[in-house]
Amino acid sequence: MQLGELGEFGLIELVTQDIAPGAEVIRGIGDDAAVYRVREGDWQLVTTDTLVEEVHFSLEYTTWRDLGWKALAVNISDIAAMGGRPLYALISLCLPVDSDVVTVQELYTGLGEVAQAFGVSLVGGDTVSGLSVVLSITLIGAVEANRAVFRSGANPGDLIIVTGTLGDSAAGLFLLQNADYDAGSEAKRRLKRAHLRPEPRVEAGRLLSATGGVTAMLDVSDGLSSDIAHIGRASQVDSLLWGENIPLSDALRDLASALGRDPLEWALHGGEDYELLFTVTRGQADRVRDTLAASGIRSAVIGEVTAPGRGNRLEYKGRLETLPQGGFNHFRMSGK
Amino acid sequence: MQLGELGEFGLIELVTQDIAPGAEVIRGIGDDAAVYRVREGDWQLVTTDTLVEEVHFSLEYTTWRDLGWKALAVNISDIAAMGGRPLYALISLCLPVDSDVVTVQELYTGLGEVAQAFGVSLVGGDTVSGLSVVLSITLIGAVEANRAVFRSGANPGDLIIVTGTLGDSAAGLFLLQNADYDAGSEAKRRLKRAHLRPEPRVEAGRLLSATGGVTAMLDVSDGLSSDIAHIGRASQVDSLLWGENIPLSDALRDLASALGRDPLEWALHGGEDYELLFTVTRGQADRVRDTLAASGIRSAVIGEVTAPGRGNRLEYKGRLETLPQGGFNHFRMSGK
Repeated sequence: MQLGELGEFGLIELVTQDIAPGAEVIRGIGDDAAVYRVREGDWQLVTTDTLVEEVHFSLEYTTWRDLGWKALAVNISDIAAMGGRPLYALISLCLPVDSDVVTVQELYTGLGEVAQAFGVSLVGGDTVSGLSVVLSITLIGAVEANRAVFRSGANPGDLIIVTGTLGDSAAGLFLLQNADYDAGSEAKRRLKRAHLRPEPRVEAGRLLSATGGVTAMLDVSDGLSSDIAHIGRASQVDSLLWGENIPLSDALRDLASALGRDPLEWALHGGEDYELLFTVTRGQADRVRDTLAASGIRSAVIGEVTAPGRGNRLEYKGRLETLPQGGFNHFRMSGK
Repeated sequence: MQLGELGEFGLIELVTQDIAPGAEVIRGIGDDAAVYRVREGDWQLVTTDTLVEEVHFSLEYTTWRDLGWKALAVNISDIAAMGGRPLYALISLCLPVDSDVVTVQELYTGLGEVAQAFGVSLVGGDTVSGLSVVLSITLIGAVEANRAVFRSGANPGDLIIVTGTLGDSAAGLFLLQNADYDAGSEAKRRLKRAHLRPEPRVEAGRLLSATGGVTAMLDVSDGLSSDIAHIGRASQVDSLLWGENIPLSDALRDLASALGRDPLEWALHGGEDYELLFTVTRGQADRVRDTLAASGIRSAVIGEVTAPGRGNRLEYKGRLETLPQGGFNHFRMSGK
């Protein structure tokens, strides 16, 4: 069935029938605004991200279900990067009028999967017709007062730490776009999954916020080289990254080796890793990393914050160079 | 200058440089998420609306500045319809890469005007490239606990009341689309302004919520005939509208008369009036209307809530008929 036959209100009823609102939701979908209670002593968080077809994703290699997962997951990652709990999501969906209803149901299946996995309630949205698919999600979260972690608190001498491994998502995208190289091994499936179904680091963000020892934090979305510069601008500092310390998965190393590429390119400039990148005073680093390790979360010290003036630099293979900027910038580059 | 030259981050800096965050905003634009305090005893409200070029607006007769005003105003209207105060807005903007930077500045001028007029802080957003203009706004508000007014509380016997006049926006759209009929009189300017720069009824919504006497409420966006049906569905009731009581402006009557049209068509089915439509028990109606009148807000009793079963009906010119449904439904009709 096409959307034109079902109509806007039929579609809303169809995709929202299985959505159970959270305990603090007084009114979810179906009124002029959603209504919810807040917990005393909490600060509220809100973030929004928009995904455009052929700019942020291609339906050639992304299923509607994976698109639903990822669209909400990247917003959850933004809340995680503040140290918060994700709570309420609103979905604005612009679709061509001849879209198939089944595809929209699959999109909501993916949205529902990630929502359930991270305790998010879908409380509202808007569905409109347009030329191409534009998916805009707003996510509200909360964090204990004075426990939010900003981008702006890094100081010279702080260590730079990242969770997990970097570059897998970009390598996965390469495989999705170059099916010839994709032998279908388990390792390659993991790389593609890192791109299509990122797992936001909510638990790590909560643990890091609770330590009180993190001076600045964000999630790696534009790419390490761009994101460390975001911290630098907000904190008025520069950074020195230690290339050999940047954590790479075996799957990424194997693929890069087979292609004769340096895996660090993907890790530095690929983006969409949704790992947490944060800074910690030297005296706190072991304690903070131990807290993560006790919950099975891997982290690596990849550099240090420096006084402003020399720019962001990379020490790699015995050379010290200015860190090239390779991340994503809308309107500056063509789509990735 | 085109957006391609300025880049995403340059654009964000340009349009946000004059934005002063509200007193409760701990962190506005520029981090992974905005952070704000909430007032104890308040419920939070959140709503989102998406406007698509050539579906919701045409840049042939809408300026970018008016578009900015209206896009945020319609969200403010949703918060008003719950009885709430609008607080924090997030703007997601999808633009063609060759858009002129000046147009985006004008859009933000309009957004800033309505934000200032209604005490809203812009705290976040996302700007991305795409095929056509898609503007998605999320607005957060608050209302005193247990004072939110839903669509679902209307009971048979309640009176149906509306603020202001209906149909002006649709008549204004007619003038904008049919320049031949537009002689440029002050009356016609008012009709066009009703369409391009709607004034959300925040004060009326606050007063109505405080009376405690309103059983159901929404804002007239799809059109009276559709919106009264929304209340009916949510409250499980039907309605009888008294056609002669529906408030029409002199400007609307004059234009309809000149065209040989019935002005009630615009008032019933036009939509985008952003007046408040609400129900009140009979014993409370005078007190509630007096409260509005004391603040200079006009209201009219336009019908009564009936027991479910007979459908929504219209009594007009001595006849009783089923109320035709003429509002806007995405995917069902072509764009308006």
